[in-house]
Amino acid sequence: EIVSWVENFFAARGALVGKKALITAGPTVEPLDPVRFFSNYSSGKMGYALAAAAREAGAEVTLVSGPVSLDAPAGVTRIEVKSAEEMKNTVLVHLPDADVIIKAAAVADYRPKHVFKQKMKKSADELTIVLEKTEDIALEVGRRKRPDQLLVGFAAETEEMERHALSKLERKGMDLIVANDVSKPGAGFGSDTNIVSVYDREGLVISLPRMNKIEVARQIIALIGERLDEH
Amino acid sequence: EIVSWVENFFAARGALVGKKALITAGPTVEPLDPVRFFSNYSSGKMGYALAAAAREAGAEVTLVSGPVSLDAPAGVTRIEVKSAEEMKNTVLVHLPDADVIIKAAAVADYRPKHVFKQKMKKSADELTIVLEKTEDIALEVGRRKRPDQLLVGFAAETEEMERHALSKLERKGMDLIVANDVSKPGAGFGSDTNIVSVYDREGLVISLPRMNKIEVARQIIALIGERLDEH
Repeated sequence: EIVSWVENFFAARGALVGKKALITAGPTVEPLDPVRFFSNYSSGKMGYALAAAAREAGAEVTLVSGPVSLDAPAGVTRIEVKSAEEMKNTVLVHLPDADVIIKAAAVADYRPKHVFKQKMKKSADELTIVLEKTEDIALEVGRRKRPDQLLVGFAAETEEMERHALSKLERKGMDLIVANDVSKPGAGFGSDTNIVSVYDREGLVISLPRMNKIEVARQIIALIGERLDEH
Repeated sequence: EIVSWVENFFAARGALVGKKALITAGPTVEPLDPVRFFSNYSSGKMGYALAAAAREAGAEVTLVSGPVSLDAPAGVTRIEVKSAEEMKNTVLVHLPDADVIIKAAAVADYRPKHVFKQKMKKSADELTIVLEKTEDIALEVGRRKRPDQLLVGFAAETEEMERHALSKLERKGMDLIVANDVSKPGAGFGSDTNIVSVYDREGLVISLPRMNKIEVARQIIALIGERLDEH
């Protein structure tokens, strides 16, 4: 066990020296009125682990983070945002500088179409809310990215993981996608561990057993290091 | 300043010896699917400060808390819940034992009527969601409470604070209501300070300047101590 931990620790050693990593993490928060919002269960742990592992591997790291209760990893530049719109704007500003973009944030894909200026009063028994699609950050990044930039996305699924992940990879012009079945115990939202499979355009690249998120992050960073060298 | 801090520290001293306090805190989280939810910006700080101040004043404290990133105050029994429904059930179980019930939680008043079992796929440009009213915990507690029990509620308002607070106090059978204008800087959600006014059925009881939430909590606990003595 010590050997495997040590191997893991050194897996990503030096893999990103001289590289710039732009990493997103956490949920976004989409307001309905001054006190209410829509969000999701992302804890930010996977994105923060990736930021720590990328830094450890020698990268200069910019972490664009939604609201989470985590401290920024040492040596990482954190930019805090709330909504999908803020996250998109921030990512696009930093995109040209990045060698690798890792989109680990769980960006809201819908937000209330109308945001109320005052707190809504509780009156009607039912309330109908229209949600509209948010900006698709991954799609926009996929469109703008240069051939020398590597785009890594995430897919949190509850069913048909492989099919949904490969479809997302293709649609959004990603180079790699990290998929996890968030309905499994020990995977995904809020958990300290994760169970992931990584795919590229040719199919499955690696499938990892349940591991701590920092160990998962090191494996992903090692793989990114290899892919950047091939670029 | 030291004098006023000391006065404040001792304001609630012994005020709740031999009493049982049931305190709710934090937001509730209402699921839309396995990963998405509706919630609000309550940080739980005011409710946790009240739990700490009540314990400091000698009470046996049960804290029913929605998801927050705060540690339970020393000596306080914390019960963690997620949805409005779970909060209601937990509060009603502990209600008969309580001398004072302080409802500082920001309970969701609406929740998605239909909860999807699988993660919703992003497809339609717009999505209509029907929200239904949640159980009105304060109203139910107001109905069930005995004359020897004191019910203290909160009102977070963004306009017409006094009118809304007095109307809520009346409607829900509360003995005291703590109102704050969450649109003011230094008041309400997420802030370490608060600016509150306390009302009873006769009108304004006290109006406090901006203070740390623990100081606000001590003033409220001192007032509750006086009211319980009068009961």
